[in-house]
Amino acid sequence: MKLKQTLQELALFGGRPLFTTPKTIGQLAAPDVEDFLRTFRKSYDARYLTNDGPLVRQLEQCLAELHETRHCIALANAGLGITMLIQHFAGGRGGEVIIPAFSYRGLPHFIQWAGQMPRFCDVDPATHGLDPAALDAAIDDRVTSILAVANFNDPGDIDGLCRVARRHRVPLFIDSVYAVGASYRGRILGSFSVAEVYSLHATKLLNGFEGGYVTTNDDAIAEILRSQRNFLLPPIRLDDSVDLSHLIGCNAKLNEMHAAMALLAIDGMDATIERNRERFMRYRERLEGVPGVELVPYASGERANYQMAVLGVTRDWPLTRDQTVALLRSEGVGINPYYSPPLPRSEHCPPGLKVPPMPVSEELAAKYVQLPVGELVSLEDIDCLCAVLELAAVEGKAIARRLAESGPS
Amino acid sequence: MKLKQTLQELALFGGRPLFTTPKTIGQLAAPDVEDFLRTFRKSYDARYLTNDGPLVRQLEQCLAELHETRHCIALANAGLGITMLIQHFAGGRGGEVIIPAFSYRGLPHFIQWAGQMPRFCDVDPATHGLDPAALDAAIDDRVTSILAVANFNDPGDIDGLCRVARRHRVPLFIDSVYAVGASYRGRILGSFSVAEVYSLHATKLLNGFEGGYVTTNDDAIAEILRSQRNFLLPPIRLDDSVDLSHLIGCNAKLNEMHAAMALLAIDGMDATIERNRERFMRYRERLEGVPGVELVPYASGERANYQMAVLGVTRDWPLTRDQTVALLRSEGVGINPYYSPPLPRSEHCPPGLKVPPMPVSEELAAKYVQLPVGELVSLEDIDCLCAVLELAAVEGKAIARRLAESGPS
Repeated sequence: MKLKQTLQELALFGGRPLFTTPKTIGQLAAPDVEDFLRTFRKSYDARYLTNDGPLVRQLEQCLAELHETRHCIALANAGLGITMLIQHFAGGRGGEVIIPAFSYRGLPHFIQWAGQMPRFCDVDPATHGLDPAALDAAIDDRVTSILAVANFNDPGDIDGLCRVARRHRVPLFIDSVYAVGASYRGRILGSFSVAEVYSLHATKLLNGFEGGYVTTNDDAIAEILRSQRNFLLPPIRLDDSVDLSHLIGCNAKLNEMHAAMALLAIDGMDATIERNRERFMRYRERLEGVPGVELVPYASGERANYQMAVLGVTRDWPLTRDQTVALLRSEGVGINPYYSPPLPRSEHCPPGLKVPPMPVSEELAAKYVQLPVGELVSLEDIDCLCAVLELAAVEGKAIARRLAESGPS
Repeated sequence: MKLKQTLQELALFGGRPLFTTPKTIGQLAAPDVEDFLRTFRKSYDARYLTNDGPLVRQLEQCLAELHETRHCIALANAGLGITMLIQHFAGGRGGEVIIPAFSYRGLPHFIQWAGQMPRFCDVDPATHGLDPAALDAAIDDRVTSILAVANFNDPGDIDGLCRVARRHRVPLFIDSVYAVGASYRGRILGSFSVAEVYSLHATKLLNGFEGGYVTTNDDAIAEILRSQRNFLLPPIRLDDSVDLSHLIGCNAKLNEMHAAMALLAIDGMDATIERNRERFMRYRERLEGVPGVELVPYASGERANYQMAVLGVTRDWPLTRDQTVALLRSEGVGINPYYSPPLPRSEHCPPGLKVPPMPVSEELAAKYVQLPVGELVSLEDIDCLCAVLELAAVEGKAIARRLAESGPS
């Protein structure tokens, strides 16, 4: 592939798009299909396909070791884990769950299935996670739990958030979907707060096709989730003083096929992270000389999984963020703005909910583009894509004009 | 294997158990693993693993053809379909959903996730489904929808139930999980009532490892479910007069791997039904001469999938139903009482809910044993198992004594 150097080469101006198959933002790492088959075969032949099979149990053990926790509970997906935890913490009363306003679109939905409403809270501009001061101000008697998010770039001020939550005696747990293998204060994520939730979706670091899991050191939480994921069977055996009459069961079990895939993903995790790092470094190297854009850095001094490359546009960049997305999409890049609009203004906010201004979330949501990464993106692809951005740095005005002519993106 | 003919040969009396690997009640049909791989491979290699992939779309088309409906919406599991439909029909108000008291343990849970409470209703002794007269008496203003169940043996009086629901203007839909391929009044199940829900769990007729789907001829319902299964994206485009502000989205998408497996299950469905029929007929033949037990028959004049063999014990049988289960379990048969206790007295009933007496459900729940069926049960296995029942017909008293000695089963 040749690096594009003139306007005429851009797809917007009639050139051939860079990519015929869209380059996307998912990880999509997958083992050789024969390895998958080999891992899965024993369960397949024995027809032990679901219901706490040997591969699921092996997976739970591997993940507990990886995250250095006492328990790992495998689930059909991460959202079910979040929903079950919220339901448990609410203890049968209707209330609200605090989440960052700048975050994943699924969160307001999970909260409502658990009979609660979201209460949005502004974030810290560096970590993109809940701001402890804003959290402190947001808590009142209506709040039944706090769902912090460890973002791809930074786990956030976990200690500060936990301190606030403890002072108010409100349970706090963490959506760590983007933090697999990452560290906080030198220790791997998994055992911070009362529980952490992870995903095994195909686009995530550990590809189980689909799936999720919860890590915890809390024996009671583990017992509850194991029962709740299978219609409250086996019955929960806890001290009678704990009232669990509000719990609703569900079908949230992971099956053997997903477990086989996830086990191979764990085997390949270090290699996947290394490939991610290589790609991220290539982006960084290529974009260093491009004025007006900046790559979101990973928390310094911590382990990271480098699974995302997110570009921020500054005031010096000649295109808006949305124009930048449109430019790249015209080249066959399957990307979107990152967490935009913020949740309170999105279609995922419950209709009619009144939300105070969230200035930091608004600013971040206007700024970022998620760049393509993962198995199907080569270093050469990155070079080509960055050449388009280099060109845009120079020819921004002409590009903006052309985008305006070609109608709404 | 030799047929057991004396008490001493029974595992209870020190004989070797009939089966070392438990024989279970699931279908567990599965194609050659290489066929699975071949079907799945294209999506795997292209890393098109989830999110409305080509295999999922093909599956939806095949299932819509199979059930003769306009729409099929593939889902991660059947329970999510039931939950979403209940949520939709409730229209944002808290209320109650009528379900049969003699039914599947998941139903009360699904209802509660949708913000409703179950209202149990007694069943018809022949069909095991909702009794139209009991339904009529159970409906009041609190009822937001009716979930009828088409049981394995009989789809129930669908016309009668729909008439009652229409008269009260309450939406009725059907859990048809056990009725894949079965007919009602000569027409295949799928398009009766406003929507029908099916499962692709490994133990069901169509094995997709896990998964489910909804069939419907209602364009609006199809549009809603397609959006709701993916966090309300794409946004629902319906007449503005329909208020959909109460809908909550979720991650209920099926992925490609499940779709590949389910597609092969559809190819093999006729053969699976034929094998089921052969096993059912063997049970029937063998048990005809055994006094005091009766096999639940399939609805006469209708197509059936013969996926279950359920034995009823009568007053003339020397063992209780639970003793019969214990006897068979000692022989390595992985079975349970069928739908027992009825839901209102089970751990799946919301604590504290007051339920009027359900005499027919109580009677049925005390009576049935689900016999092992499916791919892993041979005709010879059935002969051996029926020989144990023949022996029990004669030696029931000695067996009951031995069971009492060996402690609670």
